Amino acid sequence: MPEDRITPEHGAGGEYTEKLIREVLLPQITMRGEGSVRLDDLDDGGTFPSVKGEMVLTTDAHTVDPPVFPGGDVGALAAAGTVNDLAVMGAEPVAMACSLVVREGTPVEDLERYYRSVNEVLEEVGAHLIAGDTKVLGSSDVDVIMTTTGVGRIKELVRDDGAEPGDVIIVSGTVGDHGMTILAVRQGLDADVESDVGPVWEVVEAALDAGEVKAMKDPTRGGLAGALNEMAEKAGVRMIIEEERIPMKEEVRILGDMLGVNPLQVANEGKVVMVVPEEDAEDVLAAVKSTGRGKEAEIIGRVEEGPPRVELETEIGGRTLLEKPVGDPVPRVC
Amino acid sequence: MPEDRITPEHGAGGEYTEKLIREVLLPQITMRGEGSVRLDDLDDGGTFPSVKGEMVLTTDAHTVDPPVFPGGDVGALAAAGTVNDLAVMGAEPVAMACSLVVREGTPVEDLERYYRSVNEVLEEVGAHLIAGDTKVLGSSDVDVIMTTTGVGRIKELVRDDGAEPGDVIIVSGTVGDHGMTILAVRQGLDADVESDVGPVWEVVEAALDAGEVKAMKDPTRGGLAGALNEMAEKAGVRMIIEEERIPMKEEVRILGDMLGVNPLQVANEGKVVMVVPEEDAEDVLAAVKSTGRGKEAEIIGRVEEGPPRVELETEIGGRTLLEKPVGDPVPRVC
Repeated sequence: MPEDRITPEHGAGGEYTEKLIREVLLPQITMRGEGSVRLDDLDDGGTFPSVKGEMVLTTDAHTVDPPVFPGGDVGALAAAGTVNDLAVMGAEPVAMACSLVVREGTPVEDLERYYRSVNEVLEEVGAHLIAGDTKVLGSSDVDVIMTTTGVGRIKELVRDDGAEPGDVIIVSGTVGDHGMTILAVRQGLDADVESDVGPVWEVVEAALDAGEVKAMKDPTRGGLAGALNEMAEKAGVRMIIEEERIPMKEEVRILGDMLGVNPLQVANEGKVVMVVPEEDAEDVLAAVKSTGRGKEAEIIGRVEEGPPRVELETEIGGRTLLEKPVGDPVPRVC
Repeated sequence: MPEDRITPEHGAGGEYTEKLIREVLLPQITMRGEGSVRLDDLDDGGTFPSVKGEMVLTTDAHTVDPPVFPGGDVGALAAAGTVNDLAVMGAEPVAMACSLVVREGTPVEDLERYYRSVNEVLEEVGAHLIAGDTKVLGSSDVDVIMTTTGVGRIKELVRDDGAEPGDVIIVSGTVGDHGMTILAVRQGLDADVESDVGPVWEVVEAALDAGEVKAMKDPTRGGLAGALNEMAEKAGVRMIIEEERIPMKEEVRILGDMLGVNPLQVANEGKVVMVVPEEDAEDVLAAVKSTGRGKEAEIIGRVEEGPPRVELETEIGGRTLLEKPVGDPVPRVC
C-alpha cells in the first residue's frame, strides 16, 4: 500500500478500501471463520455455526483516548468488551463483526496493531471475526471508533436482575485498573498501572460449571459502583459491600486519592461481578480463582432485603452509600 | 427529557444515557425481540431465535449527508442496508443490533425520527432490534453514524461468485435513484427524484421460491457498475449488459447528464442484482415483478466466457466497458 496514512478513498468502498482490507487488516486476523462464508470471502456477510433455540447478540461502539495505553489498545478493548458482554449473559463467544470508523490521517500501521489485538482476544476465546466494514471521517475528536458486535452460544442464560436476599457477591479480580490507567496516562503520570483489558469467558465458564450464577455484569463504564447499583435496582434488593474485601492494587488506590477519582466508579475491562447463592459461593470462588484472569477474585459482599441501593461497609462498621457516578469521571474510556 | 439537544452526558453510560434510551429511542421501536432477553430489558445484549446449522452475520456503519433526504433518512438507510446485506446472501432478517454515534448538539428529535425509520424497516421484514449502544462525539464531520449489524436465517445461501456462462442477469428495479437524489439535494436542485431506500427481502424471497439464484448483490456504493464488476471478477466471467434494458427513471438520467455523474455508478438502497440460470430467468423475473419493490424488474444482460469484466452493449451494437468508479462519485452516500 503506497499511503502510510488513511485517506478518504480508503472508506469509499472501491479499490483503496479493498487494498486496505486485503493488505492491512485481513493479514492480522487468523480467526476468520470456519463456515461456508468466511471473512476473507469479502462477501456481504459471514456465516457462523448456530444451535437450535436461542443465541445472544450484543453490540458496542468503542473509542478510547489515547487509543494505545499501558496494557492494551482500542482493538483489544473492542474485542474484549464484546466478548465480555456475551460472557456475562452466560454465552460463549462464537462470532464477531467489526465496523471500523477511522479519521483521515490516521497512520495505517496503527490499524494493523488494533486488528492484531482483536485477533489475540479472538484466539484466547476461540471466536471468529466473520464480517466487517470500513468508513473514513474527515474530522472527529477521536482517531478510531471500533464497533464490535458479537454472537454467543448460551451455556446458561444469566440476567442482570436475578439477585435475591441471602446471595453473595463475587468480583473476579482487582478493581479500577483500566479507568485509572487511562486517567494516569492522560495526566502524564508515570504510574505503575496497566489496563486489565481482556476476555473473561474462561472465568465465567469456570463459574457456571461450579455452581449457580443468578446475576452477572462486567463493570465497565460506571465501574463496580455502576454495575452493582444496576443489579440492585433491577432486582429491587440492597447490596452490602465490605470495603476492605474489594481487591484493589495499591497503585490504583494511590492514584485515586491523588486524582480525586473513586476507583470503584471507573471502568474495568477484564472483570466480572457475579451474584451467587450462599451455598455455592465457595465453589464458584474456587473455580474462578483457578483461571488465569480470576486469581485475585474475592467475595466482597451480600444481598439483603431493603431499598434498592448499594451500601459500603467499612472495617469499623460504618456504612456509606456507594453511588453510581453522576457524570462520567473518565470520558472516552471504552 | 429536559435537553432538546445531545450533550456529552448522553453518551456517558449513566443516568442521561438511560433517559435518552428509555424516553426517546426505545418508544420508537415496537419490534423489540420476542425472546428471553429483549431490547427493553436493557441487559448486556438480547437473545434471538436460532436454528441448527449456520446463520449469517453482517455489519455496516451508515452515515449520509444530509441525514434526512427525499424518500428516507439515515435510520432507514442503516436498517435497510443491513437487511439487504442479509437478503442478498439468501438469509431472512431475524435480529438486528444498532450502535449510535451522535455528535454533540444534534437535536434529540432527529434521533426519534431515525429510530422510527429503523422500526418501519423492521416491521416490513418482521425482524427485531434486540441490542444497542449510544456514544457521543464532541466533533465530527457527520451528525450521526448508525452501525447496524444483522443476523439472518439462511433460506438458501447465495454467494457473490456463482455466475457462469449462459446465466442471465436481472435487476429488481430502476437504477441510480438513491445516489442521484443525494447528489441533487446537495447541489440544491429541485429535482423530482427520491431515494429507493427500503428492504429487499420480499423481492429476494420471491425469487428464491421461483428458481435458482446463483449470485446476488445489492448495488450500493459503486452502484450497478460496482456490483456487476465485483460479481464478474469473483466468478471470472464476462458480463454483457444491454444498455437500453436497464430500468432508469428519466429524471435520474437527466440529472446524471447534467451533473456529469453516471447513474450506473452511484448507490441504490432498495435494489438487488441477481444472476440466474437461463431456464429459470422468466420465472424468477415474474416472481420479482409480483412484489411491491420489484415491479420494474428487468432482465438486463447475460454472462459469457471471457476476461472478467462488464461490457455495456448499446442499441446499435457498440460495446463499451462499464467500469466501477475509481474514487467515490458521491461520498457519504450510505
